[in-house]
Amino acid sequence: MIEKPAPLSVNQVSIRRGFWAERQAVNRQRTIPAIYRQLEETGRLKAWSLQRTHPIPKDRGTVYMFWDSDTGKWLESVAYSLATHPDDALQSLADELIDAVAGAQQADGYLNTYFPVLAADAKWTNLRDWHEMYNAGHLIEAAVAYSQATGKDKLLAVLSRFADHIDATFGPDDGQARGYPGHPELELALVKLYRHSGERRYLDLANYFINERGQAPHYFDIEAAERGEKREDFWAQTYRYCQAHAPIREHTEATGHAVRACYLYAGIADVALETGDAELLDVSRRLWDDLTQHQMYVTGGLGPAHSNEGFTFAYDMPTETAYAETCASIALAFWAQRMFHLDPDSRYIDVMERAIYNGSLAGLSHDGETFFYANPLASYPRVNPYSRWSGITTDEHYRRQPWFFCPCCPPNISRLIAGIGEYLYSQMGDRVYAHLYQDSTASLKVAGGAVQLEQRTDYPWRGDIDFTIRCEQPRDFELALRLPDWCAEYSLSLNGAAVDVDKQRGYLVLGRSWSDGDRVSLCLSMPVERVLPHPDIRQAAGQLALQRGPLVYCLEEADNGGRLANVAIPPAAEFSASFDDDLLGGASVIQGKALRSEANGDSPALYRYQRGAEQTPAEFEFKAVPYYLWANREPGEMRVWMRSS
Amino acid sequence: MIEKPAPLSVNQVSIRRGFWAERQAVNRQRTIPAIYRQLEETGRLKAWSLQRTHPIPKDRGTVYMFWDSDTGKWLESVAYSLATHPDDALQSLADELIDAVAGAQQADGYLNTYFPVLAADAKWTNLRDWHEMYNAGHLIEAAVAYSQATGKDKLLAVLSRFADHIDATFGPDDGQARGYPGHPELELALVKLYRHSGERRYLDLANYFINERGQAPHYFDIEAAERGEKREDFWAQTYRYCQAHAPIREHTEATGHAVRACYLYAGIADVALETGDAELLDVSRRLWDDLTQHQMYVTGGLGPAHSNEGFTFAYDMPTETAYAETCASIALAFWAQRMFHLDPDSRYIDVMERAIYNGSLAGLSHDGETFFYANPLASYPRVNPYSRWSGITTDEHYRRQPWFFCPCCPPNISRLIAGIGEYLYSQMGDRVYAHLYQDSTASLKVAGGAVQLEQRTDYPWRGDIDFTIRCEQPRDFELALRLPDWCAEYSLSLNGAAVDVDKQRGYLVLGRSWSDGDRVSLCLSMPVERVLPHPDIRQAAGQLALQRGPLVYCLEEADNGGRLANVAIPPAAEFSASFDDDLLGGASVIQGKALRSEANGDSPALYRYQRGAEQTPAEFEFKAVPYYLWANREPGEMRVWMRSS
Repeated sequence: MIEKPAPLSVNQVSIRRGFWAERQAVNRQRTIPAIYRQLEETGRLKAWSLQRTHPIPKDRGTVYMFWDSDTGKWLESVAYSLATHPDDALQSLADELIDAVAGAQQADGYLNTYFPVLAADAKWTNLRDWHEMYNAGHLIEAAVAYSQATGKDKLLAVLSRFADHIDATFGPDDGQARGYPGHPELELALVKLYRHSGERRYLDLANYFINERGQAPHYFDIEAAERGEKREDFWAQTYRYCQAHAPIREHTEATGHAVRACYLYAGIADVALETGDAELLDVSRRLWDDLTQHQMYVTGGLGPAHSNEGFTFAYDMPTETAYAETCASIALAFWAQRMFHLDPDSRYIDVMERAIYNGSLAGLSHDGETFFYANPLASYPRVNPYSRWSGITTDEHYRRQPWFFCPCCPPNISRLIAGIGEYLYSQMGDRVYAHLYQDSTASLKVAGGAVQLEQRTDYPWRGDIDFTIRCEQPRDFELALRLPDWCAEYSLSLNGAAVDVDKQRGYLVLGRSWSDGDRVSLCLSMPVERVLPHPDIRQAAGQLALQRGPLVYCLEEADNGGRLANVAIPPAAEFSASFDDDLLGGASVIQGKALRSEANGDSPALYRYQRGAEQTPAEFEFKAVPYYLWANREPGEMRVWMRSS
Repeated sequence: MIEKPAPLSVNQVSIRRGFWAERQAVNRQRTIPAIYRQLEETGRLKAWSLQRTHPIPKDRGTVYMFWDSDTGKWLESVAYSLATHPDDALQSLADELIDAVAGAQQADGYLNTYFPVLAADAKWTNLRDWHEMYNAGHLIEAAVAYSQATGKDKLLAVLSRFADHIDATFGPDDGQARGYPGHPELELALVKLYRHSGERRYLDLANYFINERGQAPHYFDIEAAERGEKREDFWAQTYRYCQAHAPIREHTEATGHAVRACYLYAGIADVALETGDAELLDVSRRLWDDLTQHQMYVTGGLGPAHSNEGFTFAYDMPTETAYAETCASIALAFWAQRMFHLDPDSRYIDVMERAIYNGSLAGLSHDGETFFYANPLASYPRVNPYSRWSGITTDEHYRRQPWFFCPCCPPNISRLIAGIGEYLYSQMGDRVYAHLYQDSTASLKVAGGAVQLEQRTDYPWRGDIDFTIRCEQPRDFELALRLPDWCAEYSLSLNGAAVDVDKQRGYLVLGRSWSDGDRVSLCLSMPVERVLPHPDIRQAAGQLALQRGPLVYCLEEADNGGRLANVAIPPAAEFSASFDDDLLGGASVIQGKALRSEANGDSPALYRYQRGAEQTPAEFEFKAVPYYLWANREPGEMRVWMRSS
């Protein structure tokens, strides 16, 4: 019996058709190779030889300090892919890179491609900004994944040594520095390393990092003083930026850089689960409620502001300039999954699903080779969410790019897709939770024996999900099927007969002695839903969004013409959903009647006085497409929130 | 007979009661002294002794290079005030400052408090950024105004010498540099100096500056090369920022820094009027149409973006983050008045009135001692139009400030108010145009003799305007009364009998032989108007603004509670206007029924699915106040554009 709730691993879940099978194929065939090419072309692979081959610009040098994380995320994506789709050529490529990584390790275990070559004396002198620990975290995640996928432990050994070096260098003891990561990520990676290796010291180090964070005297002040700087010199102005403004147990709201925040919160949930620290569970719930009730886009996007790549204040949801970094939605999914394991309730998985299918997936093009960093909720020519325009006007639209100077998002979405199998199920003792529905076969040990769950579904396009249980002998366990928050009506049957079961914290729980061939059918009604914003979201006031199943929809100019701000959805409008085979490999679209206000004749007047009756707005048939698919056709306007007439 | 159309001067128009009399009293009693104190405290007055008394921060030094313009604008405001309200103490203070200014003049005529003291070698080496010509312009405007108001020519002599120095230094001849102002302003000042002195060379220099601007080889490139810099090093990235991207005759749209743009365009209109250059008239009309049909806020605010303090692209009108600098609305009023003289049509004055009563006047507090630089069209706690928030959240509201590091706006609004008399009338031959209605007495020479126009009105609160003509002998001239664009119905009577007269380019023209005591009564119907935005203004789609007479209104939290984004005006709503004696010295307010959507019960949900009938929005009585009066009571939300339900 498994004591603590845990996800079924990538190795346990086979995905061969359906939504995620298609996305994974593109990831294998296009995204993983494209990212490798970029790693190579930008010098990131060569950097492991510890020979400086690319000049580093003076004013943007810090980005070069976290090159290693890109290698880490690519290797992690490759590991998940190899686990489900063995590929000798790809594995050789990864092995070769792992050899290079190993070759870069210093005698004391330290591992980094920047400092030994360019600034050996500056090693560990700026944890706040210089990301050595962040790199370590991503490489550790890769090492654990690669070990699990291939059984090869070379990278794991290297990273374990690096982790030991960090553990020796930082901590509360004499001769140690009381530091912790400026960019959290290492915390959750250390818990992975602990779970994989069983070495308690890695969990203890993660626990130390979390609890030391924000304590007085402030470590970032201390290291700044050693560099001859003051707190006031901090470019981000406030430690809220990196969630180090107060000890973590005193935090009441999600603050600062959104990706840092969610990686940290995910690490806290991991540590709370492993240590049973009830206060950390309380902190986690408090931060979760704040974030999901005050600071989350309807797409699961996080962080409205470019200036701090993060949070501003409650209900602040600008649309065109939304930063909503792809990585932040991915990090939210990570955190959500961990919250479920800490506090098993579907409300976490509802958010996880929203973040994965919308805010995260929009970060990748349909062809798998270009990426969004920022994910606005409305798009107009000449408007770029990265920054308020400079007065230099072009007619350009905001489009996905093949790479970024700081390319954290491309390998992040790649590893999420490659590892999506891990988000489908969790197991807690003799209960198996099904979270995200996906055509797949899961293999697990439950109630003392091997069981397979065969799942057949066209989710997210359709709400019918059929499970067949495969087991050599009858097994007594519970199958807990998630009832998504968007679903108001459903039916459930067991071996063809309707059953009525308890809903426990958002899951339909069927407990029985299962026999081979038992069938469970869940039918989730999936109408088009009008989503209404909280009235304090001033940027969405009087507007609605359309959602069907887990997918948030948007209007694009390609289907509806431009001037989308003038489109309004009447209260009585009826919508129909249909599957459009021709839309980017096939996707459900929503159609219905909308109104469009147009210019008053040919008057060029910028403002006019309303005198007498206004022209009746023209009715037209609109077509909405899933938000994650936007900007894959000809450039044009896009809107998620539509005026409600 | 006056050949060219010209405004009646400040000296000719006496304002003793009514709207502008009140604003002028506050300006004399509070604003002029407050600005003087700031000039003194910040070292700007002492700077004229050419002794450096304040340390100059390395990274913000350029602002110190245009300190002199603040002195110039304050002296100009004082001059207008002395012209209408003599004040010995104030005049002594001004004379003392003028002595100091004169004492700072170099042997060659050069005048600047920065360069001779801090960077003598850098004189005239960066016309693009360093504002020596901009300072000269503002001081010249002050000198002309002071001469006209007081008859004292000391400052005029100083500035004429400086103008001569500039004229000798810059120009097309051998030994001259082909430079022109990076921040336009000197052009219009030189035309003022020409008109006052009759010295044609000042007009010629203005004409040269305008025509040389943007020519190849580009002067800003040449001087940059001499400083060892390249065009690409220009911090603003593009010469569109300073309207020097192309020769002026090729410009097709208003670009860049809004204040620079309108000062330049005003100078072009001046030169076009004086030279009769028909092509410059065409350019002026083209730029005017672009700006007023594509890039102007309903308040007459200009320039949506902080990044360039200026224009972005057509129909781009963000509300909360609108920059809409006070100075830009003032500069628009300057340009509009000059366009009228070039092309006498009320459409220019309609914009001038809009810019003065709304975008400009909002820049000053009711008490006259605090100022807005940026003038957003919606305001929420924590949102500051200067910059996208930094992630450092406070609950602060955007409020007027006593001063700014770059304090161009305070003395600018002060000089506009002090000199408002100049915007009331124009004269062209034997036609007298009345533009802005205001209780006043105008004294002029027309048809060979002295005439006084006594105007009695409570404009802008009421639309009744009564003129009485005073003249010793009958005089044959035309009185042209502006019919504002917001006025759909009016009546006109002459000596008590209704008259029907031609409307000529927006003016009701009454031509006759006028006798002493003749009375003209114009009654402008002044209902509450719904203003609708062009459908391409995406930020105002589905919304309306309220206007009555020339005043744009807004909702403030002080009257209506918060959450103003959830207020909607029903199509059938009726409005009433009434004068509220208690509102900040008395002002007309608008009341009517509106709907307010509120949260769905106590649910904290950020988003919800609409299932079944929605709660009917609550009806409430709203109260709108003139936009220029916002942020004078307790801090709170504000909105100009309101949702139309």
